[in-house]
Amino acid sequence: MLAFSDGVIAILITILVLELRPPEGDHLADILDERSKLLAYVLSFVMVGIYWNNHHHLFQIVETVDGRTMWANMHLLFWLSLMPLGTAWLGEQGVETGPVAAYAIVLLGCAFAFTLLTLSLLAIHETGSQLEQAIGDDRKGKVSLACYAAALALSPFVPWLSIALFVVVAIIWFLPDRRVERVVEQA
Amino acid sequence: MLAFSDGVIAILITILVLELRPPEGDHLADILDERSKLLAYVLSFVMVGIYWNNHHHLFQIVETVDGRTMWANMHLLFWLSLMPLGTAWLGEQGVETGPVAAYAIVLLGCAFAFTLLTLSLLAIHETGSQLEQAIGDDRKGKVSLACYAAALALSPFVPWLSIALFVVVAIIWFLPDRRVERVVEQA
Amino acid sequence: MLAFSDGVIAILITILVLELRPPEGDHLADILDERSKLLAYVLSFVMVGIYWNNHHHLFQIVETVDGRTMWANMHLLFWLSLMPLGTAWLGEQGVETGPVAAYAIVLLGCAFAFTLLTLSLLAIHETGSQLEQAIGDDRKGKVSLACYAAALALSPFVPWLSIALFVVVAIIWFLPDRRVERVVEQA
Amino acid sequence: MLAFSDGVIAILITILVLELRPPEGDHLADILDERSKLLAYVLSFVMVGIYWNNHHHLFQIVETVDGRTMWANMHLLFWLSLMPLGTAWLGEQGVETGPVAAYAIVLLGCAFAFTLLTLSLLAIHETGSQLEQAIGDDRKGKVSLACYAAALALSPFVPWLSIALFVVVAIIWFLPDRRVERVVEQA
Repeated sequence: MLAFSDGVIAILITILVLELRPPEGDHLADILDERSKLLAYVLSFVMVGIYWNNHHHLFQIVETVDGRTMWANMHLLFWLSLMPLGTAWLGEQGVETGPVAAYAIVLLGCAFAFTLLTLSLLAIHETGSQLEQAIGDDRKGKVSLACYAAALALSPFVPWLSIALFVVVAIIWFLPDRRVERVVEQA
Repeated sequence: MLAFSDGVIAILITILVLELRPPEGDHLADILDERSKLLAYVLSFVMVGIYWNNHHHLFQIVETVDGRTMWANMHLLFWLSLMPLGTAWLGEQGVETGPVAAYAIVLLGCAFAFTLLTLSLLAIHETGSQLEQAIGDDRKGKVSLACYAAALALSPFVPWLSIALFVVVAIIWFLPDRRVERVVEQA
Repeated sequence: MLAFSDGVIAILITILVLELRPPEGDHLADILDERSKLLAYVLSFVMVGIYWNNHHHLFQIVETVDGRTMWANMHLLFWLSLMPLGTAWLGEQGVETGPVAAYAIVLLGCAFAFTLLTLSLLAIHETGSQLEQAIGDDRKGKVSLACYAAALALSPFVPWLSIALFVVVAIIWFLPDRRVERVVEQA
Repeated sequence: MLAFSDGVIAILITILVLELRPPEGDHLADILDERSKLLAYVLSFVMVGIYWNNHHHLFQIVETVDGRTMWANMHLLFWLSLMPLGTAWLGEQGVETGPVAAYAIVLLGCAFAFTLLTLSLLAIHETGSQLEQAIGDDRKGKVSLACYAAALALSPFVPWLSIALFVVVAIIWFLPDRRVERVVEQA
C-alpha cells in the first residue's frame, strides 16, 4: 500500500510540472511571464511533498491495515489527485476568488482525508501503541484544518490572505513529523 | 508483477486527472462548467480503485505465477489502460449512447480480463488452496459481468440507466473482498 | 534497477494511451474515426509488453550487474522511450513510408539495445551460468533484428508488409521466454 | 525513499518524451523538423540518467537517513522536476540565450541540491564510513558546478559554448561513480 501511494504521489508531483510550459520568447526574462504558474507549482510541490513525508513517516510505524484503511488511503489519494487541477487554475487565473477557494477546498479535502486515515489506523492499533503516541492529540492536523477553513472563508474578500494561510500551514508542517521520528528512534 | 501492476494502475489513476482542465473564468461557480468531467472522473477513480484493491488482495494469497498468468495480467492492464479514453469521452459528451456504450465495453473487457486472470491462477493452484477458497464461486464477478452487459444493451435507449448500473457495481465491490481478508486472517 | 525499469516501462505503456483522444461525435461508431490510432496503440502495447516480459524474465536469473550493465539498461530505456513518438506518428498518418520507417528504426534500436544488454550481462556471468543457458544462441533476438531491418528496407515500397513483419515478430515473442522459465524451474 | 525517488526520476524521463510530437508530413525526412527537440531530449535523458545513476549508487552505501535528508532529497527532486520545462524551452527556441540560461540554472540547481544531499548524508555518517570514502573530495561535483556556472555566464554571448559545457559535464559523469563501486566491491 505504501509503494502504491508513493507511486501515486510521485506521479502527482510530476503531473504538476506538466502545467509548466515554456514561454514564447527566447530571452531569459520571458520566463517571468510564467511566474504565477511557477509560484503555484512551488506551493503545490511543497504541499504534496509534505503529504508524502507525513504519509511515509506514518506508515513506518503502522503495524496493521484493514479494508477500511485501504479505502481511507484511496480517499486521501483522491483529494491529492485534484491538486494538479487546483494548481492549474491558480496558475492560470492568479490569486482570484474562484481558484483560491477551489485550492482551499482541495486542501481541506486532503487534510480531512488524512485525519480520517489516522483515525482508521488508530481504531485497529492498541492503546499505547507507537502509532498512538506519535499521533498524540494531532495538534498540527487540527491547526491545518482550521487554517484551510479560514482560507476558504476569506477567499471572496482577501484571496491573498488565503494564500498566506497556505504558506503558514506549509511552514508548520515543513519539518518532518518529529513526534514519529522520536518514537522510531526510541524503538 | 504486483509492483508493475501497481505502477500501471497508479499511473492510470493519475492520467484520469489529466482530463480535468481548469475553467475559463475565475469564479468558484465556473468549476461547475466542468461538472460532467468531474463526475466521470469520480466514477472512474472509484472503478480503477476497486480493481487495484481486488488485484492487490488477490495477489496477497497467490502462491505461484507462470507465463500464462503474466499475459493474463497484461491483458487486464490493457483494458484498464482504456479507462482514461472512456472517461474522457464520457466527460466531454455527457450521458449519450456512444460514450456510455464505449465505457460499458471497456468495463466489460476489464471484468472479463479479471475473470481470465483468476482462472489462469486457479489452474496452477491446488484444490483447497487459499486462493480457491477466496475466489469461491466468484458471485460478485458474475454479477458485474451481467450488469455491464445489461448497461451496454441499454445504452442506445436509456443511457442514464447504464450509468446507474455502473454505480450499482461500484457499490457491490466498494468494500474490499472480505472473502480474501477472512482467509488471510485465518492463515 | 529492475524496479526502475519496471517503472519506466509502466509509464511508457500509459503514455501510449495519452495519444488516444475521444472522437468528436457521440455515436459509438464515431470511435472508428480513431481506428488507426487504436490499432497503433494495440501494436505498441503488445511490443512494450513483450519487452517488459523478457526484461523481467532476464533479470530473474541475473546474478550480478555492473556499471556497464546499468548504462546498457538506460540505453534500452532510451529506445523504448521513443515508442510513444513512433506510435503517435503511425496513428496520425497511417501506414505511410515515413512513420513506418521511423517505427522500424525505433524497434531496431530497442532490439539492438536489448542484445547489447544481454551481451553486457553475459560478460560478467560465468560460463555455464543459468543466464548463459537461458540466452543460448538467442535465435529469437536475431530473427527479430532481421525482421525489423527488412521492415525498414521495405517501408518505402510496401509499408503494409513492414507492419506484417512487426506482427510476425510480436507473435514470435508473444509467449514468455520459455527457455528462462525452464531454467528457473530447474533451479 | 529510494523507491520514491526512482519513481519520480522514471516519470521525469518519460515526461521529457511527451514533448516529442510527430511531424506533420509522412516522409521519413520530416522527422528532421523535430531535430532540435530530439537533440534536447537526448541531452536531458542523459543528464537525468546520470543523476539517477549517481543517486542510486549513493543510496546503496547510505546507512541511515533523517528528516533533513528527506527534505534535501525532495529539494533535489524539485530541481530535477524542472528539467522537462528547461528541455521544452530549449527544444522549441533552439540554442538562444534565454532557454540556454534557464537550462543552466536548472542544472546548477540540481548540482547544488545533490551537493546539499551528500553533505546532509555525511553529517549523519561516521568518519571513515563507506559513504565518506566514496564521496571523498567530490571533485566531479565541484567541476560540474563550475561548468554550469560558466555555461550560465557564457549564455548571453556564445550559447553554443554553454551547450558544449553541458556535454563536457555529461561525459565526465557518464561512467558510474567508480569510487562508490570500488568501495562496494571491497565491502
